[in-house]
Amino acid sequence: MSVLRKKIIVRLHDTDAAGLLFFAHQFFYAHDIYEDLLRTIGAPMEDLIAHGDFFVPIVHAESQYLLGLIVGQELEASVVIANLGNSSYTLEYELKNTAGELVGKAKTVHVTIDRSTRKKIPIPQDFRARLSKFQSAP
Amino acid sequence: MSVLRKKIIVRLHDTDAAGLLFFAHQFFYAHDIYEDLLRTIGAPMEDLIAHGDFFVPIVHAESQYLLGLIVGQELEASVVIANLGNSSYTLEYELKNTAGELVGKAKTVHVTIDRSTRKKIPIPQDFRARLSKFQSAP
Amino acid sequence: MSVLRKKIIVRLHDTDAAGLLFFAHQFFYAHDIYEDLLRTIGAPMEDLIAHGDFFVPIVHAESQYLLGLIVGQELEASVVIANLGNSSYTLEYELKNTAGELVGKAKTVHVTIDRSTRKKIPIPQDFRARLSKFQSAP
Amino acid sequence: MSVLRKKIIVRLHDTDAAGLLFFAHQFFYAHDIYEDLLRTIGAPMEDLIAHGDFFVPIVHAESQYLLGLIVGQELEASVVIANLGNSSYTLEYELKNTAGELVGKAKTVHVTIDRSTRKKIPIPQDFRARLSKFQSAP
Repeated sequence: MSVLRKKIIVRLHDTDAAGLLFFAHQFFYAHDIYEDLLRTIGAPMEDLIAHGDFFVPIVHAESQYLLGLIVGQELEASVVIANLGNSSYTLEYELKNTAGELVGKAKTVHVTIDRSTRKKIPIPQDFRARLSKFQSAP
Repeated sequence: MSVLRKKIIVRLHDTDAAGLLFFAHQFFYAHDIYEDLLRTIGAPMEDLIAHGDFFVPIVHAESQYLLGLIVGQELEASVVIANLGNSSYTLEYELKNTAGELVGKAKTVHVTIDRSTRKKIPIPQDFRARLSKFQSAP
Repeated sequence: MSVLRKKIIVRLHDTDAAGLLFFAHQFFYAHDIYEDLLRTIGAPMEDLIAHGDFFVPIVHAESQYLLGLIVGQELEASVVIANLGNSSYTLEYELKNTAGELVGKAKTVHVTIDRSTRKKIPIPQDFRARLSKFQSAP
Repeated sequence: MSVLRKKIIVRLHDTDAAGLLFFAHQFFYAHDIYEDLLRTIGAPMEDLIAHGDFFVPIVHAESQYLLGLIVGQELEASVVIANLGNSSYTLEYELKNTAGELVGKAKTVHVTIDRSTRKKIPIPQDFRARLSKFQSAP
């Protein structure tokens, strides 16, 4: 299963007055690397928004927090396509510190919706092929 | 079980270029009303941060999205203390639109940690009493 | 000159690890009350975005910070239309603490742009009338 | 005068329902590269926050917006120390698109404050030396 990885740095505006990463901002890191994944597979977010006859809202998101994170800390974020269903797909994310410890996890579930009817539809063929190719890459 | 409610309005900076609320920002709404709850029970966030010998990080968060939300939309947010454990508590949130439909849900799990040892501790007695009193209020 | 005011509370996600309001978030407070002003004059942001043949981007923003602000702090935000030009208008904002001290100021300059040509245009008549009426209200 | 540069990508959570970068988020880009500058000169933000007997709040910020920016757009951000005063310094930022056009500018003014007295103080010698060395590097 293919994994996309990148380095990130915790920014001051990601933290709060308790001195650590504000929990909801971990989802920013997750969505950033999801946007990178979309670009990698040739279906960048800007195309999905501008030209698509479908859209792909997130219907469920969850996150775990294993260690507090401070400003300036370097992390490695990674994402995999954990499930590719008929009309939805699930991404799973990990955050590791420079010691290689898992410090956070997240998951997002995305559903393909027809832009005019606002109903759930099967993942359109071209988009599915791109997700599938990434998922099954060695 | 006591419920805290308040009106909120979706702000432009809560939305994204897809035209709807950015999913992670729903957690801002949840945390805002959690801060209101802390104030209501006499344990405001600023006291927890400034004076506490413990802190209460979020270790798990999750959210569901039932309907897309647009800028300017009025919502009612509500929060309950769904579980009050030995060293953790769980809050559950709902967002309803003006028609009374459920448009979003969220949950956060908070663990009490000793500030010096960084170990899990039982919820300190005074704080527990305040949470408990809110939870069991008619 | 008419002034719109509202109470706000500094939220945890508005602060950073230095313990105070993150400077850029003061602009969120400014824009929130600008959105309230648009609603008050009958030209809500959602209409500007959805139906308008023009849009009104911000071309300049500035902010001053007079006192550090902490989570939970109550503030009064206010906004006035400081200038109503031919194709632009300027809003000025103030933030005061509960002692009535000025703790922050901001200014935003908005320009009306034709949605198809992307060129500056005079503020459309109906929108100008609404801004003008607010500005000159006693 | 030394310039620090880096590539950035406009993220979905930086945009709003008007389809473009939300103006206040441009300050996030500015502050991110300021944090990089602090790291480059050996005075990283986490040290300023954790160990300093002074802090350096922003007292003024301003920004100009020359072109609308969309999700996925690649930009080059740059920062210079435009002024190094007795108890304050000013940073100036530019954002350019891949065509090399200036699309945004920003400025932040920082003042050194004694942590106990909360009074303005001269920029401490070691910190000044680091800023000065960066500023005057060829």
